[in-house]
Amino acid sequence: MQASMHSFSVPVFVKTLGNLSAILGKAAAYAEQKKFDPAVLLAMRLAPDMFPLTMQVRIACDFAKGAAARLAGEEPPKWDDGETTIAELQERIARTIGFIEGFDAARFVGAESRTVTLTIRGEPVEYAGLAYLAHVALPNFFFHATTAYGILRHAGVELGKRDFIGKV
Amino acid sequence: MQASMHSFSVPVFVKTLGNLSAILGKAAAYAEQKKFDPAVLLAMRLAPDMFPLTMQVRIACDFAKGAAARLAGEEPPKWDDGETTIAELQERIARTIGFIEGFDAARFVGAESRTVTLTIRGEPVEYAGLAYLAHVALPNFFFHATTAYGILRHAGVELGKRDFIGKV
Repeated sequence: MQASMHSFSVPVFVKTLGNLSAILGKAAAYAEQKKFDPAVLLAMRLAPDMFPLTMQVRIACDFAKGAAARLAGEEPPKWDDGETTIAELQERIARTIGFIEGFDAARFVGAESRTVTLTIRGEPVEYAGLAYLAHVALPNFFFHATTAYGILRHAGVELGKRDFIGKV
Repeated sequence: MQASMHSFSVPVFVKTLGNLSAILGKAAAYAEQKKFDPAVLLAMRLAPDMFPLTMQVRIACDFAKGAAARLAGEEPPKWDDGETTIAELQERIARTIGFIEGFDAARFVGAESRTVTLTIRGEPVEYAGLAYLAHVALPNFFFHATTAYGILRHAGVELGKRDFIGKV
């Protein structure tokens, strides 16, 4: 098994997204056990000017979806951001996993040097594929997935780092 | 530039560790401006059974140090965990950056299939180098670096995701 653009993207995203879905399942069970509306968790934030849980999960999904598509030279599809329940967020995660699993290693041949153009604050910014994956997509993906976990830990959901890392 | 074990380890760790050091600098400035002891920040946690900021920074450093050494077939050096100030944590980060920058891409040739043995809860666990980097070292590194950021955001330090991601 060689290091490749694929080995540091699709399987990494799939694993962490699966773990995130299970974490959300534990959050739903916690709300049920404590008899509060799980939507309370979805609106929680670590700071007033940080995104709430719902957005953290969505953005993690979108970095995974965006990276897979862009590294294959495609424009990522836009999906509605209408999720209002934990089950709907888990559905977005499942959809993301299904989408990115459609990209096998052959799709990313040459992706290191493929130009990826993002629009950042209204301006086009170009990256080589390798820098985009290593320094934009992966850090952002883990940033949002970890922040989702942190929100739920702060809210009292019984989780441990093993829930985040999973079995390796 | 080809995707390699090096391109998804040393430069990724160096960049995020540098950003983390700057984030800690902003935390120190915040404590000074608000006239509180910065050690308060170092002891903060997102949940009672999560590690405090000091440990989050140390562990992020140690996943970077451990990955670089192990992927090169070396045992990582053990460093004292005596930091009690922000400046000392920044010094650990600087030492980590210096250490891992000593590993160039040539040191990681064949690292994909090199067996990495960790001791987890007293038991030896073996990974192929590629799985270790993609599914253990990188996720854990970002988990702890992001949690350090989240603690400081929750504490009111003025930061944005750009401080975490940096310039790409």
